[in-house]
Amino acid sequence: MSRISVLGLGAMGTALAATLVRKGHSVTVWNRTQSRAKPLVSAGAMIAATPAEAVAASELTILCVVDYAAAGAVLAEAQDALRGRDLVNLTNGTPREAKDLADWAETKGAAYLDGGIMAIPPMIGDRGALILYSGSNALFERHKPSLDALAESRHLGEDPSLAALYDLALLSGMYGLFSGFLHAGALVASSGGKVTDFLPLLLPWITAMSGTLPDLANKVDSGLHDRSVVSNLAMQRVALENIARASREQGIAPDFIEPMLRLATRRIAEGHGSDDISGVIETIRRQT
Amino acid sequence: MSRISVLGLGAMGTALAATLVRKGHSVTVWNRTQSRAKPLVSAGAMIAATPAEAVAASELTILCVVDYAAAGAVLAEAQDALRGRDLVNLTNGTPREAKDLADWAETKGAAYLDGGIMAIPPMIGDRGALILYSGSNALFERHKPSLDALAESRHLGEDPSLAALYDLALLSGMYGLFSGFLHAGALVASSGGKVTDFLPLLLPWITAMSGTLPDLANKVDSGLHDRSVVSNLAMQRVALENIARASREQGIAPDFIEPMLRLATRRIAEGHGSDDISGVIETIRRQT
Repeated sequence: MSRISVLGLGAMGTALAATLVRKGHSVTVWNRTQSRAKPLVSAGAMIAATPAEAVAASELTILCVVDYAAAGAVLAEAQDALRGRDLVNLTNGTPREAKDLADWAETKGAAYLDGGIMAIPPMIGDRGALILYSGSNALFERHKPSLDALAESRHLGEDPSLAALYDLALLSGMYGLFSGFLHAGALVASSGGKVTDFLPLLLPWITAMSGTLPDLANKVDSGLHDRSVVSNLAMQRVALENIARASREQGIAPDFIEPMLRLATRRIAEGHGSDDISGVIETIRRQT
Repeated sequence: MSRISVLGLGAMGTALAATLVRKGHSVTVWNRTQSRAKPLVSAGAMIAATPAEAVAASELTILCVVDYAAAGAVLAEAQDALRGRDLVNLTNGTPREAKDLADWAETKGAAYLDGGIMAIPPMIGDRGALILYSGSNALFERHKPSLDALAESRHLGEDPSLAALYDLALLSGMYGLFSGFLHAGALVASSGGKVTDFLPLLLPWITAMSGTLPDLANKVDSGLHDRSVVSNLAMQRVALENIARASREQGIAPDFIEPMLRLATRRIAEGHGSDDISGVIETIRRQT
């Protein structure tokens, strides 16, 4: 079992520390508001008075605070203790923030691994939780048994920005699903229907339509959006306009459906009406 | 086996007529451009010279044209033949258009059933195709065996607008899924990743997140968005802002993610920051 320090005891940091304690690790915790550490100390964790003391106590330090501003402030207090230590940062942020912090950690002599947690706190330590990692593969391999105690662990590459990027990409997929669900639910409810009664139609439909994503992914990767197209953008725009029109008739604001209608219309105007829906991605990518 | 007429031989109308011929029905077809009927006539269909002649030839007429303007024009030519006939309209449109056409058909003495086809033409007659119906239940029951030859048949109620509404609601769910997929794919591709390589992460994640929809549906139906909330709107806005910020950093236009960020922010400003994400639906519904 390893000696592990956990900096930051919000809901997620507490779940991480509690899981490591429960699975028999020697855990040292630190939090700005020290009272949040009490239940963990009762469970067997040690408490550190400062971030530097926590980092010094263990070979591996896991950082999980509210944002990168907080992460930078905490680590600044511990910078003299970082040399030769392993740092895993599970704070939510952008790929650039992860890269900048990795660069800073390198100047302090610490190995750096960034992580994106695809779970909510009650899932930590249980089946179904996933943490994406990127950065030092050596660090990842050294501590994989400890990291596996928290969640399924997936290392995406040495570039420390990848975990944040893929984390946010997965969340984008989720918010798309939720956007479509809320618009659909508003339509159903506008005629007095119950959204719970609509789910036996929606859920198999979402599963079936998810089955088209591998084909769309191939088209995105190859840029060949006009190969073996069954329902092209010009045809799909008719459906999108029907959705927008029906929404207005039912008193539903079109916010969630409007971007796809607008971007598909732009792509058609640019001469790509026979493309598949995958072609819309070209309207949101960096134009090089 | 029944006598069935099919008006409109676009890609979908042709698939409908061909399937009915293949399954042994006595099929009469009509199309404005008569040459499109040739392959069907070779397969055994009869051809009518006018919409009225087609309607007169069969107890059941299936109409599938490009939009309701075309549907109205075709049916106007057949109006004197409609009395006592059964009309199934599978033309894409809005709930109001369906209701208006049902009212018109009633004045002509025809029974009316509206349908929304949840399939692409090659799927007609095969497993996986679904057609939602609403309107005359008596008509639906009379012709269910013939309709079942086309797709799985689901009758939603006597209100003829329901099939169009639920059809467009399902498509809204699909376009939400596609919107999220395209934004996620653009993020992944911006760092040189392949979207096909990302799917083994995305697809199980979409399945897992679909598992939260029954809870969100309950919250929408009850209006109780603040019950047993694990990740509230205030917390989710941080993630949405990270997505928007990372997108800008990666050169990705934020169109697909911006509505959820904007509407969640509005909902929080209205004092509902402790609601679940389901609460965002209140910002797009008709305010009564």
